[in-house]
Amino acid sequence: MTTHFQTYQNRGGPTYTKERITKLRAELKKRKLNGFIVPLADEHLNEYISSHDERLLWLTGFSGSAGIAIILEQKAAIFIDGRYTLQIQTEVDQSIITPLPIMETSPSNWLQQHIKKGARIGLDPHLQAVSSFETFNETLEKKAAKLISVKTNPIDTIWEDQPKRPQAPVNSHPKKYAGKTADEKIKEIQDHLKEKQIDAFIVTAPESVCWLLNIRGSDVPRTPIMLAHAIIHARAKPELFLDKERMSTRAKDQLSQITKLQLPQKFDEALSALGARFKKVLIDPKRTNSAIYQTLRTARAEIVRGQDPIALPKAKKNKAEIEGMKTAHERDGIAICQFLHWLSETQEKTTITEISAAQTLEEYRRATGALKDISFETISGAGPNGAIVHYRVSEATNRSLKSGELYLVDSGAQYQDGTTDITRTIAIGEPTKPMRKHYTLVLKAHINLTTAYFPKGTRGVDLDPLARTPLWRAGLDFNHGTGHGVGSFLAVHEGPQGISRRAMVPFEPGMVLSNEPGYYREGAYGIRLENLELITEPEEISGGEHPMMHFETLTLAPFDQNLIESELLTKTEIKWLNAYHRTVWKTIGKHLKGAQKSWLKEATTPLK
Amino acid sequence: MTTHFQTYQNRGGPTYTKERITKLRAELKKRKLNGFIVPLADEHLNEYISSHDERLLWLTGFSGSAGIAIILEQKAAIFIDGRYTLQIQTEVDQSIITPLPIMETSPSNWLQQHIKKGARIGLDPHLQAVSSFETFNETLEKKAAKLISVKTNPIDTIWEDQPKRPQAPVNSHPKKYAGKTADEKIKEIQDHLKEKQIDAFIVTAPESVCWLLNIRGSDVPRTPIMLAHAIIHARAKPELFLDKERMSTRAKDQLSQITKLQLPQKFDEALSALGARFKKVLIDPKRTNSAIYQTLRTARAEIVRGQDPIALPKAKKNKAEIEGMKTAHERDGIAICQFLHWLSETQEKTTITEISAAQTLEEYRRATGALKDISFETISGAGPNGAIVHYRVSEATNRSLKSGELYLVDSGAQYQDGTTDITRTIAIGEPTKPMRKHYTLVLKAHINLTTAYFPKGTRGVDLDPLARTPLWRAGLDFNHGTGHGVGSFLAVHEGPQGISRRAMVPFEPGMVLSNEPGYYREGAYGIRLENLELITEPEEISGGEHPMMHFETLTLAPFDQNLIESELLTKTEIKWLNAYHRTVWKTIGKHLKGAQKSWLKEATTPLK
Repeated sequence: MTTHFQTYQNRGGPTYTKERITKLRAELKKRKLNGFIVPLADEHLNEYISSHDERLLWLTGFSGSAGIAIILEQKAAIFIDGRYTLQIQTEVDQSIITPLPIMETSPSNWLQQHIKKGARIGLDPHLQAVSSFETFNETLEKKAAKLISVKTNPIDTIWEDQPKRPQAPVNSHPKKYAGKTADEKIKEIQDHLKEKQIDAFIVTAPESVCWLLNIRGSDVPRTPIMLAHAIIHARAKPELFLDKERMSTRAKDQLSQITKLQLPQKFDEALSALGARFKKVLIDPKRTNSAIYQTLRTARAEIVRGQDPIALPKAKKNKAEIEGMKTAHERDGIAICQFLHWLSETQEKTTITEISAAQTLEEYRRATGALKDISFETISGAGPNGAIVHYRVSEATNRSLKSGELYLVDSGAQYQDGTTDITRTIAIGEPTKPMRKHYTLVLKAHINLTTAYFPKGTRGVDLDPLARTPLWRAGLDFNHGTGHGVGSFLAVHEGPQGISRRAMVPFEPGMVLSNEPGYYREGAYGIRLENLELITEPEEISGGEHPMMHFETLTLAPFDQNLIESELLTKTEIKWLNAYHRTVWKTIGKHLKGAQKSWLKEATTPLK
Repeated sequence: MTTHFQTYQNRGGPTYTKERITKLRAELKKRKLNGFIVPLADEHLNEYISSHDERLLWLTGFSGSAGIAIILEQKAAIFIDGRYTLQIQTEVDQSIITPLPIMETSPSNWLQQHIKKGARIGLDPHLQAVSSFETFNETLEKKAAKLISVKTNPIDTIWEDQPKRPQAPVNSHPKKYAGKTADEKIKEIQDHLKEKQIDAFIVTAPESVCWLLNIRGSDVPRTPIMLAHAIIHARAKPELFLDKERMSTRAKDQLSQITKLQLPQKFDEALSALGARFKKVLIDPKRTNSAIYQTLRTARAEIVRGQDPIALPKAKKNKAEIEGMKTAHERDGIAICQFLHWLSETQEKTTITEISAAQTLEEYRRATGALKDISFETISGAGPNGAIVHYRVSEATNRSLKSGELYLVDSGAQYQDGTTDITRTIAIGEPTKPMRKHYTLVLKAHINLTTAYFPKGTRGVDLDPLARTPLWRAGLDFNHGTGHGVGSFLAVHEGPQGISRRAMVPFEPGMVLSNEPGYYREGAYGIRLENLELITEPEEISGGEHPMMHFETLTLAPFDQNLIESELLTKTEIKWLNAYHRTVWKTIGKHLKGAQKSWLKEATTPLK
C-alpha cells in the first residue's frame, strides 16, 4: 500500500481535555499564575506547525487550524471562528472548557470580564506576535492585572511525551530553480536596508530565510522550510541560527561561505548585541514574536516596524522561478487530468469516497516521481461537504460521491521547481439546472478576472470585484478572498500580494496569484474554480497609451463542461474557455495515452 | 442682456505681484516675522471661497483653484499642481515669486531648505487645517524655527480695498425639500454623540450646519451656504454663531426655537467654556482650522478626532431629498436638451465659442425660473481644451467650436430641490474614427459601472475599476477619480462617499454619486460622460441569496449617437443605452415642442 502525506483519522477529541487542563492549572498554581493563554502557533508564527508545537490540540483536543484558549483558575474558554463551531462540539470536553465564537467575543474582552484586579496572566512570548501581545497587555492594564511572559512554557513542562523540536535535514535549493545566487539576493536586501538607514533586519519568517539563502527544509508539514532565524546586517555577513549537523554537505558548504553560522541558542545573544551597539533594527510585527521584541527592547536597540523586505522580491518570481512554476504546473496538470479521468470512469463502477478520491489524487501526483509533499491538506468535499469552505475530510465526516451531487476538490503539490494549487468542481452523474447555472456564474467570475488588463499601480483590491460582479448580478456572493500569493517551492499562501477587499499591495510582473471565486449553497453543494495566474510584464497595446499587465494562466486542467450552461456565457467568454481548453489539450494531451488521452480530447472539445 | 453667474475675464495677472509682496514684507518686518504662509482657504476650509478670502489671488495674481504661497525675506515661492503649470506663467511676476510644482517640492520641504535656524514664520491658524498645521510645525522644529500663529492676518492689514466678510441673507430650507425637521436631525446627532460618550461636536463645515438646521445662505459662490460655526452639545441645545440680523423672518423663528443663537464673535468664548468644563469634544481634523484646535487645547478640553458625524446622514438622502433630486434633474434635463438642440442646429450657422456655449447653457437653466446658482464653474472645452481635465474657459483661452472637433461640457445647477452635475461630449461636424472608438470605450466604462449590482459593504474603491476595465483593455486610462458624492441643494462635491482608489466608505441607499469616466488625448480632445446615480435600497433578486443595491440614474440627457461605434458595444450595453434613451425621451420629450422635440426624438432613437 502506498503511504500518503495526508492522513484522515480524527486528530482531536475530548478524552483528555479535563485531565490535562487540570494538570495545567496545578502547574500554573506552582508558578503563581492566575491564568495562561494558549495560542495555536510556533515561534515563527507559521501557518503550518510541527507536532512539537501542537500545544492547543494536546491540551484541549481541538484539531482545527486556528484557535486560542485561555485557562483561568475557575473558567476556561476556547475561541474559534465560524468554520469550527460544529466540529468543536465533538472535540473538546465542554464540562471544563467553553467554546466561544471569536467574531462575537474577542479573547481580550473575555479576559477583561473574567479576571480579578491584580491577576497575573501568563503567556509564552515566543508564540505571540508583537501586535497581539500589545493588545493583551492593554487589556490587562485596564484591570490593573499583569501579563507575565513565561520563560518556559508550562505546557511543555507537563506534556510528558511531547514530540521533539523538528531537526529535519536542510538542503540546498539549486540555482537552476532559484534563478539567483544567495549572494545576489543578500546584496539586494542589504542595499535596501542601507537606503532606509537600517542596520539590521531580523528574519523571522522561515520562507524568507529559505528564499534568501537558497535552502529548503522539512520541519513542518506542507511547506518546505526549516525553523530557523537569521539576521541580515546592512554591512556584514548575515547570521544564520541553524545547527550545521542538520545541513547536507552542499548546504553546509554554501551557507558557510555566505553566512556566519551560529547555533540556534545563540540567537538571543545576537539580538542583545544589536542593542548594545545601538543599532537600528527592522522587525515585521506580524511575523515577529514578542520574545524577540522584548529582547531587542531590553537591550535598547532602536526598533523600526515595517514589512519584511524579503517578502516583495520573493513574490516577484524571476525567469528561472517562472520556468519552474510552468514545468511544475505541466507535471501537476498531467496528474490532475489522470485523476479527473479516473473520477469520470470509476464513479459508475465503484463507490468513491472523499478520502479515496483525495488518496487517488495524491497517488497520481506521487507517480510523477517529483512530489515532495502536498502543498496543503486536500479539500475533498462531496455534496453538502463541498459547501464548507475550509472542509477537511476525516474518517468521521467521510462521504461517498453520489450521483446527482457535486464534488469539489481543492489541492496542491510541492515540487522542487514549483508549488501548485488548483480547485475543480465536478458533476457526479447528471447535474441539476441550478447546479449548472451556479457553476456557469462562478466560471464567468473566474473568466472576468483572468481576462483583465491592468496598469501599473493596480492592487488586489481593485481586481477583487471582477470575480464577483457576475455573481452579484444574480444576488450571490462568496465569503472569502478571491486570491492569494503562492511561493516557489515555498508556502502556498504567501504575501504580500493578494486579491481581496484588503489587498493594498500593487501588483508587479512575476507575482503569482490564485483566482478562485466560488459559490456555496449550504447543505447542498459547493462550487469553486481555481487556477494560478502569473502577472506578465506590461505590454504595449496597439492604439493604447499605457502598457498593461495581464494574467498568464499557469494551471492546466479542463473545466467540467457538463456543468456549463452555454447560453449564460458571452461570445468572449466562450472564446476564452475554448482557447484555454485548447492550451490544456496541447500541453497535457501529448503526455497521455489510451483512455486518458481520449477522455481529455473529449473534455477539451470546443464549446459552440 | 442677461447677467450670468459665471464670468470669463482673466481674474489674475502679474501687474501687482511685486508691489504687494513688497508691501507684505514690510508688514512682516514690523511684526518681527521672517516669513508668512499664504494658503488658498477660508476659516471653514471650503472648496469655494468669498472674495473677502481671496488673499492668495490678491497677493500673487494667481487665479487657480488650489495653491499655497510662502513669502520669506529674500525668497518667495508659490506651489501649484499640474493643472496650473502653464497658467501661472502668465499670472504671477516671476521676478519676485517662483512657481513650483507641489508634487515635486512640498511647501514643507522648501521651507526647511530656505529658512535660517531660529526663524519666525507666521501663519494664520484660521486658514490652516489641524493636520497641515502640524506638518509645518514639525518641519520648523527640525530647524529650531518657530511657527507663529498670527492674531490678525497681515494681508488683511495691507489690503486696503479688501471686500467685507460676506453677510448675505440666511433663509430657511423648507421641510418639503429637507424631508426631516432640524429637531429630528439634531436628536439623531445627539444620540450618536451620547453613544460615543462625546459631550460636544464643533460643526465647522458650513454644509453640515446648513443641513442640520435646515437653512441655506449665499456667502460663497456655487454652494448655497453661509459662513457660520455651530456647536452640537450631546445634552443641550446646539449653539449657532450667526447674527440674527442676517436671517429671514422664518429662519429667525425656526433657529430661535431649536438653537441657542450667538453672535459669531462669541465662538471663541464658547470653545473655551467647553474646556473649562473638561468636556470631551469631537473635531473633524480635515475640516477644522488650527485656531479652533488651539483654543480648545489651551482651554484643556479633551479633544477627540474623527469624521464629522453629520457627513454620513447628510449623504444618505431621505425620501423628500430624493424626490427633490429627481424633480431637479428633470428640470435640468429639459435645459440640457434645449442646449444640446441649440448646439446641433446653430453650429453650422454661426460661430459658437466656449464662452457663448457656456452662457447659452446657463440661460436655458435660468429660463427654468428655478436656478439659484450654477453648482460649479462650467467646464466648456473645445478641441484640445477638452483634454484639460479642470479647464476653466476665460477670454484669454476662449476657442470656437470647429467642425471635426469634439466639445466637452461639464456643468451643473443649484435648484432649491436639488443639485445637478452632468458632462456630455459632442461631435462638432463629422467625427474621426479614433474619436468614435474612444467615445464608445468611455461609454462602455460608464455603462459597466451604472449597471453594477453590489451587496452591503461595497465601497467606492470596489466599483472604481468597473469604469476603467474597458479602457484598460485598450491600453487607456483616465487620471482622476470616477465619482464624487453630491449634496442636496448643497456642495456639488460632498463626501464621505466617492468612487476612486481611495474611497473606503461603504455605500448606503440614498447616497448620490457621479459616474464620470473619461479619456483625454493631449492636444487633441477630451471625452467625459457623466451622470449622477442614486443608490437604491437593496433588492431581492429571484434565485439570489443576498439583496443587492444598484444605481438609479438621475441625469436625463442623450449621449451623442454620432460618436457611438455600435460594433464595439455588446448586446447588453446596447440594451442599456436604448432603455436609458427611452427614459430620457419619455421624461423630457413631453416638456419640449417643435424642433426641440423632434431633435430629442431623433437623438434618442434606439441603436440597432
